[in-house]
Amino acid sequence: MKSISLLGASGSIGTQTLDVIRAHPGRFRLVAASVGRNVEAARKLMAEFAPRLVAVADRGAYETLCSEYGGRTMVVYGEDGLIEAAVHPDADIVVTAVVGSVGLVPTLKAIEAGKTIALANKETLVVAGHLVTAAAEKRGVPLLPVDSEHSAIFQCLQGEKLEQVDKLILTASGGSFRDRTREELAGVTVEEALCHPNWSMGAKITIDSATMMNKGFEVIEAHWLFGLPYERIDVVLHRESVIHSLVQFRDTSVLAQLGTPDMRVPIQYALTYPERLPLSAAQPLDLAAIGSLHFAPVDFERYRCLRLAYEAGRRGGSLPAVLNAANEEAVAAFLAGRIPFLAIEEWIERALERHQPISDPSLEEIRAIDADTRAYVRTLLS
Amino acid sequence: MKSISLLGASGSIGTQTLDVIRAHPGRFRLVAASVGRNVEAARKLMAEFAPRLVAVADRGAYETLCSEYGGRTMVVYGEDGLIEAAVHPDADIVVTAVVGSVGLVPTLKAIEAGKTIALANKETLVVAGHLVTAAAEKRGVPLLPVDSEHSAIFQCLQGEKLEQVDKLILTASGGSFRDRTREELAGVTVEEALCHPNWSMGAKITIDSATMMNKGFEVIEAHWLFGLPYERIDVVLHRESVIHSLVQFRDTSVLAQLGTPDMRVPIQYALTYPERLPLSAAQPLDLAAIGSLHFAPVDFERYRCLRLAYEAGRRGGSLPAVLNAANEEAVAAFLAGRIPFLAIEEWIERALERHQPISDPSLEEIRAIDADTRAYVRTLLS
Repeated sequence: MKSISLLGASGSIGTQTLDVIRAHPGRFRLVAASVGRNVEAARKLMAEFAPRLVAVADRGAYETLCSEYGGRTMVVYGEDGLIEAAVHPDADIVVTAVVGSVGLVPTLKAIEAGKTIALANKETLVVAGHLVTAAAEKRGVPLLPVDSEHSAIFQCLQGEKLEQVDKLILTASGGSFRDRTREELAGVTVEEALCHPNWSMGAKITIDSATMMNKGFEVIEAHWLFGLPYERIDVVLHRESVIHSLVQFRDTSVLAQLGTPDMRVPIQYALTYPERLPLSAAQPLDLAAIGSLHFAPVDFERYRCLRLAYEAGRRGGSLPAVLNAANEEAVAAFLAGRIPFLAIEEWIERALERHQPISDPSLEEIRAIDADTRAYVRTLLS
Repeated sequence: MKSISLLGASGSIGTQTLDVIRAHPGRFRLVAASVGRNVEAARKLMAEFAPRLVAVADRGAYETLCSEYGGRTMVVYGEDGLIEAAVHPDADIVVTAVVGSVGLVPTLKAIEAGKTIALANKETLVVAGHLVTAAAEKRGVPLLPVDSEHSAIFQCLQGEKLEQVDKLILTASGGSFRDRTREELAGVTVEEALCHPNWSMGAKITIDSATMMNKGFEVIEAHWLFGLPYERIDVVLHRESVIHSLVQFRDTSVLAQLGTPDMRVPIQYALTYPERLPLSAAQPLDLAAIGSLHFAPVDFERYRCLRLAYEAGRRGGSLPAVLNAANEEAVAAFLAGRIPFLAIEEWIERALERHQPISDPSLEEIRAIDADTRAYVRTLLS
């Protein structure tokens, strides 16, 4: 029986993680969870799973829940509450499925508390990969990827030696605008951008997929998770998202992981690793029915965000933190209908150009750079 | 340093095995080899590798070589000679690359002598899978696949548990006649049949590929190598031969091994397993340049030999030995221009229908059934 703390239980990855826990009641137990401001999600979760602790974002939600539940589940709130969920003494494994850089500190605290990390929060490794991997190594804590691409690579690496890897190849669907030219991107709407061809995901990550900043973050994550330099991490366009990623070894042999687009598969793999359990809800792959798979090279001019991510990753230090903060602000402004789609990459580029990089930034420095970048990007709007 | 005995050094797999040995002089040493009737191959091999022992097929070749070389390499001949090469005391690993059922006894002897087997002779497992796997298990000898499909599955299974496998999926190019209807197959020539779209191989296996008997043999081999029942071994048509085979696990996750069509990759993997060495001669895969991969279901009426192989495998016992012997005779008759292409499957079906199956046949019984089947199939010609 594995005891799970789930940070971000009301989001897309969070609810699918609950599906996996629900499917294997004899294997998994939810002991702690965070739900942001979603009081209704907290109510359902407490009724169904009776966790020891639930963390909400603010005092209002906290008081509502406390008045209703009278202490059967301990309710906490704020950043401290999120950390309490992350380090809950009963948890063996912490699933970090919160969206955005708010996931960083709780993940570091969970590592320090010796928890196995099922990592579904991209920003953690993007902004502080050097701190997170160093902490995990020091504490001997496994970082298990939940992203379908990194899970694919992780699965392909089982039984293999990292020093025999030639390169990692991340597949990219190309997002909701893959069939449009740059010129056609100028006038796209929020509604169009939110319509991803293969995966059903949250709003922010769907926009990141359309700009391919998402793939850029994944390249940076792959760098930290698997320890390979950026010139040995490639991206190939693959519109069907059937091959989730590939590993090429030094004998030219390539291993790939494939499947239908269902995040429950990599979520469950992280929770059961190194075992595999049946997952009756998932649809098996039928290649003969699919008929064909397509691949194309990435155009770094067409997908400028991906180029910016590679550059920020290669130069390292504080630049990926700027990349992430500028992207969060720009995507929020686009989703609010305040800037056009192509302004996202422009704002990020301007934030990166303005920044004076520092190497090996501390957590405090990262937080300061994050705040400073956000403030700067917001000034672009006014 | 691994010492290798190479049975079938002058054939297609044999010469590519020599390429691999040549590429890593500090890792591999050729200590014994067999070359059939190819005296010239024996001369070259003795000059380049100076093995301790070379086996040839007949006394004539033996005497020619003895007179030329005066004992620097020990020369032996006949079936006893082939067995001597297989059990050579200096060999750690025996590559069984001879074609046809002649590979069976030397493989069993090598297993009894405790040699690791790099298995490139399909007939060994097809006709006597029960004997070979039992002997290998008893002696604790690994059977390492060299066939690209089985090597692919073997690579995908590293770090995984067999009881968590849902099914094996062998890919099939469809052979040289894949774009022809059954009606169009009636008049095809030997020259047309020998033109395989993806792989450069020997004549017999190229015909087996055109009939898809080759894939049928691979299904039977997969059954014995990986211990899965036939209903959990599938075949999917994949014309590009880029995905060499796949494994579907019980969580619906699928692993695949891919590469350019180059037998040196699986040969080297069997020799270096569980390591991987660089293989500079091989061309790395470039999915973006390939552009697309295609898949289609197998039509068992179109490929009757594949259906016959599944049936013989499922019913088991002595039937796969009949399947193989009848196929060898029929393919030889086709290659000699004596029967049309579609008569191959017809002769095999008649031989299978005539046979009174016995379960768990001994080596002696298999040899008798082999001889009896060949004699019967030859009578069909006269």
